[in-house]
Amino acid sequence: MAASVGFLGPLGTYSEEAALLYDPSADMPYPTITAVGEAVASGEVEEGVVPIENSLAGSVIFTLDLLISQPKLFIRGEIDLPIEHFLLTKPGTDPAEIKVIYSHPQALQQCRAYLEKNFPQAEQMASLSTVSSVQDAFASPVPAAAISPRRASELYDVYILDRGIQDVAANVTRFAVIGLSDHPPTGRDKTSVAFTFDVDTPGLLYKALGEFAQRGINLFKVESRPTKQSLGEYIFLVDCAGHREESPMKEALAALSQPISMLRILGSYPLWSPKGSP
Amino acid sequence: MAASVGFLGPLGTYSEEAALLYDPSADMPYPTITAVGEAVASGEVEEGVVPIENSLAGSVIFTLDLLISQPKLFIRGEIDLPIEHFLLTKPGTDPAEIKVIYSHPQALQQCRAYLEKNFPQAEQMASLSTVSSVQDAFASPVPAAAISPRRASELYDVYILDRGIQDVAANVTRFAVIGLSDHPPTGRDKTSVAFTFDVDTPGLLYKALGEFAQRGINLFKVESRPTKQSLGEYIFLVDCAGHREESPMKEALAALSQPISMLRILGSYPLWSPKGSP
Repeated sequence: MAASVGFLGPLGTYSEEAALLYDPSADMPYPTITAVGEAVASGEVEEGVVPIENSLAGSVIFTLDLLISQPKLFIRGEIDLPIEHFLLTKPGTDPAEIKVIYSHPQALQQCRAYLEKNFPQAEQMASLSTVSSVQDAFASPVPAAAISPRRASELYDVYILDRGIQDVAANVTRFAVIGLSDHPPTGRDKTSVAFTFDVDTPGLLYKALGEFAQRGINLFKVESRPTKQSLGEYIFLVDCAGHREESPMKEALAALSQPISMLRILGSYPLWSPKGSP
Repeated sequence: MAASVGFLGPLGTYSEEAALLYDPSADMPYPTITAVGEAVASGEVEEGVVPIENSLAGSVIFTLDLLISQPKLFIRGEIDLPIEHFLLTKPGTDPAEIKVIYSHPQALQQCRAYLEKNFPQAEQMASLSTVSSVQDAFASPVPAAAISPRRASELYDVYILDRGIQDVAANVTRFAVIGLSDHPPTGRDKTSVAFTFDVDTPGLLYKALGEFAQRGINLFKVESRPTKQSLGEYIFLVDCAGHREESPMKEALAALSQPISMLRILGSYPLWSPKGSP
């Protein structure tokens, strides 16, 4: 039986693109990241695909909060999706006549230079999402376009006016595959952990990272992020090379737990490797 | 002569609130973070106020990129601003009649539970900013409200229907004050540095953090963030206690430069302490 896969909806978003890249049968959209987490925790779906990090915008706090607060959930995979913004119109729209361009404000901002150069006269209008912007453009009384993911162009009868219109070419979002267990060792794995300290003593983070460094374990990512209590208290997030069931990671994690007040192993899982075209 | 202070506009945003908290004469809004940086670099304004970190959304990548790429700019101060969303209407609007609520999609999301509980029938509509949402609500053909900063309520003739409506009470944005030099020592300072390594050897970050730990220097923040090239290459950002001109920070920074390919001292500046009410 194929696993059922939930993802952050609505249909047509980059999250659906990532979910389809992971499993072409993925067809369960949920309205929020929290709802995806609840569907996985309750067994409604076997796996969930949620954004965890973007190369421009950084970590997705909602996903990290979900993983830290819900001990039943683990990361069991990752997907790196290049973000490519498409410019879509209703078929028959004359590009020279476009008066309004709709999208989520963040996507409009990411295409700022392109829009100023190519559509200096068009008014920019906000949409709730990069998918609802297609509906907004279609409903517009004047000629309009929408900035949307490729996947949205497959769901609506649209004309693709342009693609890759974001100002910074290298825009990649990493998605996490979450489940009730993590992934068995594959020989090319990664482990994500989160931890905090009770006291704010100089050197505690240094000591913790030493457990990895002294065992020759490479760190892919270190992040201290403010807890919700105040800007001054931090949770540390570390991604490192290796599987939690194998040496030397196994020993590093055991040693790590000593100076730490909370340690949550978010999961071990294979490093992402794209398999040709989806 | 009072320093001229630029900030991320438009008028009425949280950035203006932060700038006014720092200097009540601040009156130079700029359209983007980059434009604030250019105004400071060219001497058009003496100081600029830009968001650098939010307790929910994490680091503001545009600001970090600006500081890393523009060696003339330094951080010379910080401002912590509690984010409080206000619900504003045109005077005379009956709350029970509200059919539409406008805001930036991020603000709508931050007030999700409040809106579902108090305005389940109201349609949520996207605005380009939390300030333009006031204009959108005023222009609405049906009774409407806007989610906006307190400062917006002072710029328009509005009725404040509610305040503090965000679902997570503790939502704080940290702003950086940037200038052509950083701040002289005050005895209660902080230093921000950014660095990268040429090679991805296990233990290099550990060795770098050791220069602080071995000297008893407390770390407030450590962040590895992807460079624009790919998700896998990282710049490390560290905030630590002390001033770059004073011991032991001075020695730590000197020792740090050895295993590192790029070291940028973003500035030393006094820790934020709110002075009563603005």
